[in-house]
Amino acid sequence: MACTTNAFSLSLSSNPNTNLPSNFNPKLNKPLNVSLRGSGTGDLNLGRLALSRPSQLSRRICANATQVMDQSVGERTSAAPTIVEVDLGNRSYPIYIGSGLLDQHQLLQKHVHGKKVIVVTNTTIAPLYLDKVVDALTRGNPNVSVENVILPDGEKYKNMETLMKVFDKAIESRLDRRCTFVALGGGVIGDMCGFAAAAFLRGVNFIQIPTTVMAQVDSSVGGKTGINHPLGKNLIGAFYQPQCVLVDTNTLDTLPDRELASGLAEVIKYGLIRDAKFFEWQEKNIEKLMARDPDALAYAIKRSCENKAEVVSLDEKESGLRATLNLGHTFGHAIETGFGYGEWLHGEAVAAGTVMAVDMSYHLGWIDSSIVKRVNDILLRAKLPTAPPETMTVEMFKSVMAVDKKVADGLLRLILLKGPLGNCVFTSEYDRKALDDTLAAFCKS
Amino acid sequence: MACTTNAFSLSLSSNPNTNLPSNFNPKLNKPLNVSLRGSGTGDLNLGRLALSRPSQLSRRICANATQVMDQSVGERTSAAPTIVEVDLGNRSYPIYIGSGLLDQHQLLQKHVHGKKVIVVTNTTIAPLYLDKVVDALTRGNPNVSVENVILPDGEKYKNMETLMKVFDKAIESRLDRRCTFVALGGGVIGDMCGFAAAAFLRGVNFIQIPTTVMAQVDSSVGGKTGINHPLGKNLIGAFYQPQCVLVDTNTLDTLPDRELASGLAEVIKYGLIRDAKFFEWQEKNIEKLMARDPDALAYAIKRSCENKAEVVSLDEKESGLRATLNLGHTFGHAIETGFGYGEWLHGEAVAAGTVMAVDMSYHLGWIDSSIVKRVNDILLRAKLPTAPPETMTVEMFKSVMAVDKKVADGLLRLILLKGPLGNCVFTSEYDRKALDDTLAAFCKS
Repeated sequence: MACTTNAFSLSLSSNPNTNLPSNFNPKLNKPLNVSLRGSGTGDLNLGRLALSRPSQLSRRICANATQVMDQSVGERTSAAPTIVEVDLGNRSYPIYIGSGLLDQHQLLQKHVHGKKVIVVTNTTIAPLYLDKVVDALTRGNPNVSVENVILPDGEKYKNMETLMKVFDKAIESRLDRRCTFVALGGGVIGDMCGFAAAAFLRGVNFIQIPTTVMAQVDSSVGGKTGINHPLGKNLIGAFYQPQCVLVDTNTLDTLPDRELASGLAEVIKYGLIRDAKFFEWQEKNIEKLMARDPDALAYAIKRSCENKAEVVSLDEKESGLRATLNLGHTFGHAIETGFGYGEWLHGEAVAAGTVMAVDMSYHLGWIDSSIVKRVNDILLRAKLPTAPPETMTVEMFKSVMAVDKKVADGLLRLILLKGPLGNCVFTSEYDRKALDDTLAAFCKS
Repeated sequence: MACTTNAFSLSLSSNPNTNLPSNFNPKLNKPLNVSLRGSGTGDLNLGRLALSRPSQLSRRICANATQVMDQSVGERTSAAPTIVEVDLGNRSYPIYIGSGLLDQHQLLQKHVHGKKVIVVTNTTIAPLYLDKVVDALTRGNPNVSVENVILPDGEKYKNMETLMKVFDKAIESRLDRRCTFVALGGGVIGDMCGFAAAAFLRGVNFIQIPTTVMAQVDSSVGGKTGINHPLGKNLIGAFYQPQCVLVDTNTLDTLPDRELASGLAEVIKYGLIRDAKFFEWQEKNIEKLMARDPDALAYAIKRSCENKAEVVSLDEKESGLRATLNLGHTFGHAIETGFGYGEWLHGEAVAAGTVMAVDMSYHLGWIDSSIVKRVNDILLRAKLPTAPPETMTVEMFKSVMAVDKKVADGLLRLILLKGPLGNCVFTSEYDRKALDDTLAAFCKS
């Protein structure tokens, strides 16, 4: 491989505060140390890579993006939803994507089973959309009664204690096997509501109404549900598919900037692991996405869902291929668990984790330096962190990664990029030194 | 129907203490009131039905049983296990039945996946069989490491708090997706370990080693797993099939009499709902079973597993047929929940519940009085209760039955006998008065 003889490690050095959303806690982020380890005569010595300030970057890229705007953007109307089908035999289901879909009540109602519905949501989303969803469920449909349970908001509440509140409410409301659980919220709500639906009376119907980019492009699709354990993320759960996923892009109007950016980390992931053309589109449109351009967002959501649906259809239970969707997640989960659930948003941790996975892929000589740079660039433009919090130690990473779900017979399998842009591998066959080097490069101790 | 014109209700009156195992708490049982409600000129007026004391009964029936011993009993040897296959496509699995199977270590080992095993058991079973099982897992197989978690014993611990101990241990032991969970114990252990295996890392391999009659003939087969909620039994769980079920009948040597009898309630159930010939065999052999005749027990276990496997193969997720396995369970669950988990054994509650279901079937005019008598007779001979605890009220039954898993769109579906012996229905179409009458007949208030 061409880049093997030029193997070196590159970590970008910059003031991290300029790369983060305004509500980002600067003390949590770690300045990126310049770290160069040459291993051959052909080392590229980039030294300290000077980065433009994001504001300058934004202007420049926005102009480019306008010029090369993908023609497929803008083809959607708010009236008819785009439909992406998740093909899983008799458990297949549609993902509806569009603006104002919650006003099309028949769309939701045709997937409701039974006469009783429970909407699981949180304290942030309930005041914004609960009434709208109840209306969508009941308008012209008086036989349906709707209960709700409003959980505290945040990853740190994605635990058994909170889950029990859903069961308590469902049982007190005398929901039976013909009821429907509706998840209204982001990934945490979707994961918890889905697991509750999987386990309540050994399984009842379930609908996802994701209200964050993160949930709309990733977590609401594919049936992974679950809760965290104090020792690791998503260690308790089920594969449980919904009846449908309803993505009303209007719900993004109320999404904080930081949450928006967090979701883009997963959008970027799809490009890196399997869809170079989509990544190139993102490079041209990232500022449009950040500015909430409706057509750009709708396209990014649709293309992400298409990628996810294809992967899930091929490997529902994650025996191999599906694991590639976890690029950056093993490092990212370690950050979320080690640093405390909810301190960083999931996508923020995934972004830093992606940089680490890319760094390691590069250490291994599996990718070209241009990919390293492009990944860093797009994440910075999305105002996402590109390094773990500085309090993270090598030991913290290792202890959490040891209980990662991708460990098999004691060997940690990782998703690493390999080859041209858009290609990755899921493997335990890598030089342990590369992992150690990456951890050392990104941790002070 | 012939018996419609002779509709009456019969409750046997006897000193309940004579019908119960020695460790049975007499204050928990309710003397059966004579309750006669004629509805036609042809009423059979049995008045107070005089019952022989169980000891007399036992002697008489034992003699009969010897004379008519089923020829199929005695055909098994301790060397080769009887195998009953549960046919579920690519999730099919064998039930091995035989004495000394835990000494045939290859039988267990061929179903272990991965290098790490966790045995979930309880404080009663661990001192008796944990070493034996660890030996069976590891003999000649040094690459496998075995962890264990020992839970408190009893239905009242079948809850989320106890379940979390299994997850804690599994995660602390760094078990990965290729591990195997082994349930060693009765129904409570099997249900909890199975649900833990279903939810740990979204599903890992699982083996059942049931050590009670209840678990060997019923709960270990078919993949129903779960835990109780304070408001109802088994309300949280999963359908999750094991890799195999290994029934070593030698483990029954240490089973208390009361537990043995409890398991027979489920054996009797199979006869009533679908296997009249098996019921007739039981009528001839019940004292042999109570006396732990190895061949009689092995036959009863095998025939029960065959019945269960057939039903589960036809209707794994309980869309209809499988519900019939719950004869007596709706009333029984109400007793277990209303009276306090663990006060009565599951089979004791099911026995009383079966009498209530049979009584109601008779009220409805769906069965002949001879079936009512035969059910009462065989349960009394098995030293099982034939009425709920006297502290149970109509209101307690109704409030628990309202959250039963078989409620659909607000209507409680019940399993009731209908027609000749060995036939039943699962229906919400019954006269509510019959349910009220049965509850009134068995409750003081």
